[in-house]
Amino acid sequence: MGGANGKSGHRVWRNARLATMADGAAGLGIVEKGAVAARDGLIVYAGPEADMPAVAGQGAETVDCAGRWITPGLIDCHTHLIYAGNRANEFEMRLAGATYEEVARAGGGIVSSVKSLRAASEDELVAQTLPRLDALIAEGVTTVEVKSGYGLDADNEKKSLRAARRLANERPVTVRTTCLAAHALPPEAKGDKDAFIGLVADTILPEVAAENLADAVDGFCEGIAFSPEQMTRVFDKAKALGLPVKLHADQLSNLHGAALAARYGALSADHLEYTDEEGAEAMARAGTVATILPGAYYFIRETKKPPVDLFRRHGVKMAVATDSNPGTSPLTSLLLTMNMAATLFGMTVDECLTGVTREAARALGLLDKTGTLEAGKSADLAIWDIERPAELVYRMGFNPLHARIWRGQ
Amino acid sequence: MGGANGKSGHRVWRNARLATMADGAAGLGIVEKGAVAARDGLIVYAGPEADMPAVAGQGAETVDCAGRWITPGLIDCHTHLIYAGNRANEFEMRLAGATYEEVARAGGGIVSSVKSLRAASEDELVAQTLPRLDALIAEGVTTVEVKSGYGLDADNEKKSLRAARRLANERPVTVRTTCLAAHALPPEAKGDKDAFIGLVADTILPEVAAENLADAVDGFCEGIAFSPEQMTRVFDKAKALGLPVKLHADQLSNLHGAALAARYGALSADHLEYTDEEGAEAMARAGTVATILPGAYYFIRETKKPPVDLFRRHGVKMAVATDSNPGTSPLTSLLLTMNMAATLFGMTVDECLTGVTREAARALGLLDKTGTLEAGKSADLAIWDIERPAELVYRMGFNPLHARIWRGQ
Ligand SMILES: [Zn+2]
Ligand SMILES: [Zn+2]
Repeated sequence: MGGANGKSGHRVWRNARLATMADGAAGLGIVEKGAVAARDGLIVYAGPEADMPAVAGQGAETVDCAGRWITPGLIDCHTHLIYAGNRANEFEMRLAGATYEEVARAGGGIVSSVKSLRAASEDELVAQTLPRLDALIAEGVTTVEVKSGYGLDADNEKKSLRAARRLANERPVTVRTTCLAAHALPPEAKGDKDAFIGLVADTILPEVAAENLADAVDGFCEGIAFSPEQMTRVFDKAKALGLPVKLHADQLSNLHGAALAARYGALSADHLEYTDEEGAEAMARAGTVATILPGAYYFIRETKKPPVDLFRRHGVKMAVATDSNPGTSPLTSLLLTMNMAATLFGMTVDECLTGVTREAARALGLLDKTGTLEAGKSADLAIWDIERPAELVYRMGFNPLHARIWRGQ
Repeated sequence: MGGANGKSGHRVWRNARLATMADGAAGLGIVEKGAVAARDGLIVYAGPEADMPAVAGQGAETVDCAGRWITPGLIDCHTHLIYAGNRANEFEMRLAGATYEEVARAGGGIVSSVKSLRAASEDELVAQTLPRLDALIAEGVTTVEVKSGYGLDADNEKKSLRAARRLANERPVTVRTTCLAAHALPPEAKGDKDAFIGLVADTILPEVAAENLADAVDGFCEGIAFSPEQMTRVFDKAKALGLPVKLHADQLSNLHGAALAARYGALSADHLEYTDEEGAEAMARAGTVATILPGAYYFIRETKKPPVDLFRRHGVKMAVATDSNPGTSPLTSLLLTMNMAATLFGMTVDECLTGVTREAARALGLLDKTGTLEAGKSADLAIWDIERPAELVYRMGFNPLHARIWRGQ
C-alpha cells in the first residue's frame, strides 16, 4: 500500500469545512471546522477537527485546507459515455430547419451512433471516451456509471463494456458498467422487437455475464423503444444472472415503467418525466432511486418536467446525472447538470448536492462504499474553492475544484 | 517587437481548417486546407495554404495544426465581470421557496452586489474577477467587454472601471470597458430616479471620461430601472463626451428601448426579448447590433424569447454574449452560451459562431481590429480539437480548445 503520499497512504485534510452528506444528518451534514483522515484508501475519520482521535492523525501527512470545503467525490450515476463520433451534424441540421425525417434520411438518429460504434475498435472507443471522462474528472467526479447500448449485438455490446471497464485502468476513477442492450432496435432486426429482445435475453446478457462485463442491466421502456412486457423478459434474465436492474422509464409517455422497475427492486428508474403517483409510491416502497436527468430535457426541449414534488412527498430518493450521450445530452459537466436540475426542475441546493453524491451512490448500489464522508468508506473527496456549497449549483460554466482525491490519493 | 516566439513575432499556422467568419463570405467562411500567417501581432495572411504568398511565410516559426480548426479568438461583448462576492445565497433561498420580498428583506438583490462592491478595494475586485476571466480565456476568449454598474456613485464606478482596465495588464486579453452607472438606483438616492440620472450625466460620466476609463456608455431601460426619457439624458451626455452608447433594452417589457438605442446610433441593443418590428427596423437602419443574452433568460426562467426571426428578416446583425453577472447570469462559458442561444432561441450554428466573433466585434466597434481571420486584423486565434465547427455549439460543458493566440502570441 502507500503510494505517492508515503506514510502507508495515511493522510489528514484539516482546517476544512465538510459537507459529509451523511444519511440521516440534517441538510448536507455540514461540519464547520472539520477534518478527514484516510488510511490505505479508506476514510478513518470525518468530523469536527477537535474531536478527531489522536490515532487517526498520528504519522499522517497533513494537508491544510485553509477553510476550503470538502464534499464526497462526485458521482455521475447515468452516462452513455462510450460512443464513437458525435451527432453535431444532426444538431446543426435541426437548427437549420430540417425535420426529424430529413435528419433520419441523412443517416442521423441513434442508428448513426450504432454504425459509428460498430466501426470503431475497442482502442478507438477508449481513446474517444477519455476526453469526456477527463471533463467529468476535472470537476471532481470519482465514480462514473457507463452504459453500453450502441452496439446492439453481442460482440459490439461486449466491446463497449470492455472499453468501459478499461477506463478504470486509464484514469483514477471508479467505473460501474451497465449493459443497455435493450436500448434500441438495430437495423438488422428489421422491426422485429420481440426477436431482438430474445437475442438480448438469450444471448447478449448471458455472454456479458459470463465475462463479468456488466454490474447492472438497463433498458429503454418507451413507445419508440421496448414495451413493459419486453422489458420483463430482459429483467427476468438479469435476475436469473444475478444482476441488478435499472430502467429508462416514463421519459416521453407513461408506460408505468417506474412501477415496473420497482417491481424488480431496481436500483433506479431514470428520466421519469411522466411518472404518476402510483409509480412514485411503488418506487418509495421498493427503495428505487429516481434519477433525474435535466440535460436531455433541456437539449431536446421537453416541456413535461419530472414530478419532483411527488417524489418528495413519497420519500423517493433523487439522484442527478448527466445522461451524457451524443443524441440527446452531449453534456459532460455534473456541475452544470446540478444547475439545470435546480433551474429547470426547482430542485433545492441540498437535493442537487446529495443527488450527485449520496443518492447517486445509492443508485449504483455503492452507498456502503462511497458517496458520503464517513469512516469506512472510500476516501473519495472533492475540495472546493468556494464560500458555500450553493455555489456549486449556482454557477454556470465555472469549475471551482481545488483538488480531487480518489481512494486516498 | 518579437517576443517569446522569436523571429520578430512572425508565425504561420498551417495544415488547418479555417472558419474565417469574414464578412460577405458564405456561412462561416470555411477554408479546408488553410493557413494563417501573423507578424508583429497582426494577421498578414489567412486563406488557402496553397495560395499563401511566399513572403508571408519566409523566416516564420511554423506550427502544424494537424487538420485542427482555427476560428477567430472568441469575443464576449456583454459582461458584468467586475463584482465582489456572489449571490449563491439568494439562489439557494429562492429554490427553497423564498419570495423575492423575503430575499430582499434578507439583503438580497442588486443592492447586495452594490454593498459588496463598495466594500471591496480595487485590488480585491481584480483578484475576485480574475478566476471568472480565466474561465472565459480557457475557452478561447481573446476580447471581453466589462461593465461597471454596481458602484452607482462616482468613486465606486471609477473604481470598477479601473479594476476592469487592470484586467488587461494581468492577462493576455483585450478589455473594453463600459460605464453602466445608469444600471439601478442606489439606496442613498431614496427613490429619486431623476436626481440620480442627474448625478450620472453631470458628475459620473464627465469624471469617467476625464480619466478615460470607459470605451462606451450603457444603461438599463426598464420599468424597474430607468425610463427612455431618463436614458436620453445619459445618452446626450455620452454623445457630448464623444463616447458611443449601448443599451439594456426591452428585456422585461417593451419600452421601445431598441428604437431609442438606434436613434442614438448605438453600437448594440442588448437582451431585446420584447422588441417589436419597429425596433428591429430601426436597429437595422442604424446598424445597431442585437446582442442576444440567453444566460439570463435561462437563469431567471423567462418565457418570452427575443424575436430572432424578426432580426433575421430585417437584417439586424446578432451577437451572443454571456451577460456574466452575479444576479441573473452567473455564467462564465461562452461555449455554453452558444448552446443556449441555439437550444433555447433556435439560433443556427452559423449565427452562434458569428455571434461570438464577427458580430461581437461589431457590437464593440472593433470590427476593423478583430473578430475575423483577415489580413490586417489582430492575430487573435482559437485552435480547436474538433471535426466540425458545429461541435462548439452542440456540446455542453466540454472545452475542446487546443490553443489560444492573442495578438500573435
Ligand atoms: Zn440514458
Ligand atoms: Zn447585462
